Amino acid sequence: MHLPSKVKLVDVGPRDGLQNEKSPVPAAVKIELVHRLQDAGLTEIEVTSYVSPKWVPQMADNAEVMAGIRRKPGVRYSVLTPNMQGLEAAMKPAPELWPDEIVVFGAASEAFSQRNINCSIAESIERFRPVVAAARASNIYVRGSISCSVGCPYEGEIAPERVERVARLMKEIGVQHIGVADTIGVGTPLKVQRAMEAALRHYDLDGVSGHFHDTYGQALANTLASLQMGVWQFDTSVAGLGGCPYAKGATGNVATEDVVYLLHGMGIETGIDLDKLIDAGKFISDFLGRQPNSRAATALLNKRMN
Amino acid sequence: MHLPSKVKLVDVGPRDGLQNEKSPVPAAVKIELVHRLQDAGLTEIEVTSYVSPKWVPQMADNAEVMAGIRRKPGVRYSVLTPNMQGLEAAMKPAPELWPDEIVVFGAASEAFSQRNINCSIAESIERFRPVVAAARASNIYVRGSISCSVGCPYEGEIAPERVERVARLMKEIGVQHIGVADTIGVGTPLKVQRAMEAALRHYDLDGVSGHFHDTYGQALANTLASLQMGVWQFDTSVAGLGGCPYAKGATGNVATEDVVYLLHGMGIETGIDLDKLIDAGKFISDFLGRQPNSRAATALLNKRMN
Repeated sequence: MHLPSKVKLVDVGPRDGLQNEKSPVPAAVKIELVHRLQDAGLTEIEVTSYVSPKWVPQMADNAEVMAGIRRKPGVRYSVLTPNMQGLEAAMKPAPELWPDEIVVFGAASEAFSQRNINCSIAESIERFRPVVAAARASNIYVRGSISCSVGCPYEGEIAPERVERVARLMKEIGVQHIGVADTIGVGTPLKVQRAMEAALRHYDLDGVSGHFHDTYGQALANTLASLQMGVWQFDTSVAGLGGCPYAKGATGNVATEDVVYLLHGMGIETGIDLDKLIDAGKFISDFLGRQPNSRAATALLNKRMN
Repeated sequence: MHLPSKVKLVDVGPRDGLQNEKSPVPAAVKIELVHRLQDAGLTEIEVTSYVSPKWVPQMADNAEVMAGIRRKPGVRYSVLTPNMQGLEAAMKPAPELWPDEIVVFGAASEAFSQRNINCSIAESIERFRPVVAAARASNIYVRGSISCSVGCPYEGEIAPERVERVARLMKEIGVQHIGVADTIGVGTPLKVQRAMEAALRHYDLDGVSGHFHDTYGQALANTLASLQMGVWQFDTSVAGLGGCPYAKGATGNVATEDVVYLLHGMGIETGIDLDKLIDAGKFISDFLGRQPNSRAATALLNKRMN
């Protein structure tokens, strides 16, 4: 097996995880969550998004959250900026409050692109072009995410060629890194590897990450299959924050705790302290009034009580 | 990747899954569950155990369940028989009611053996010797299970050499097949592969199966790692029946539904109809008054309602 010796996890809990929460999460709680994640050893955190509060009210406090974070050297803070307005808002304060990285979201499925961001895939890429250029001109790293890289709730299975196309388009406009996202969690190892291969036609191993959902319980198997290709960067969400908007009550983002358990068990370094990570997940889960949606966290929290 | 094209799953739900249930499950419900599993395409079902009702009251109806099953050609029915008394009880009725297969449980951990079956590993093997001989003399297939093959709740990590030893001892007394069981779900892919390799020193690929628990969410990754070695037989439990007695509220046996989703997604045949399997899991979960402990079942049941 060709396995990386180190893996970097990007915790997307504060943004991707919390964005669908119905009840408001105060900025102070989000800031505390970011602090706990960085104290646990996460070196990249997706903090918030600069989108219209009309669409995503939960992220209306983006500026307050970004300003409230005690930045830790060596940690990268990323935000979602789907358009120029978003980027301008993210860059409105003094440069020390800017994100280190922005994320733009494209889709491998036309139907998903239309329904989710109201335009075709090609149009979305054109919309990102000036955003990418402006960010890079200010030395902000640009990551692209390809939603529905394996399956789409409207179109079903997605052919690898369509991932390849979006990767190529993103490369052309200067996106520096792409995430292969199985947004609805339908992927299984061989399909995920084919989507990864498609992305790797335009980006090298350092420029590709995996973003898996555990809706069908497949996320760790897909992570293993990606590791075996040499992929060493993954998005995960502490306590499995973030349900699946396409299946009520179902699991969404894979839990960071479960992935860390997998990696450490395989002798792969993450720099993350699993106990502190579990505390971070417990903190936000307690605030939300539920149990962490992570099997490793559940088992280890049970063990602590015995 | 070296992957099998077909996989056989042994559903252990009626026995391993239900044995820890506090409230009694009537024999008629167990029989109906077995019928639904065979109708869904399962070709081997672990039905019950012949152990003292003092220790496992839930299985006191073993003879009634075995007599009540409408046997389907091509399906194998197995039972747990830890000693001669158990085997004699299983063989008390007419031969057409005998099990096709018996299972004996050893452990790779001395401490677990002592606490679980009150004797050393070597003593347990000696206890199984006449059971194996008698079963084989009557043409009943003998499967052995090696508990705690990766980790033990009392001893921690288990070295592969200890799995190798139990496999050798089981081979010596005539056990025909062994299951490498990660009883507490602490295994991760490389550790599981090392345990499998140890078992494969004494049995060929047709004689080894994997039995994984999803306590830490690792079961499907471990299944994938085993498939990559050519292992093609696995124990699973419909609806994830069977909690983990070592971690209250935690997940135990991996759900058959999740494994079938993985395999079918990889193009590996199982002969199982996932929809019917989900119905079987819903049937027993409804009876027990809870949701199936399977992410694939949860997602697919949600999808049905939309």
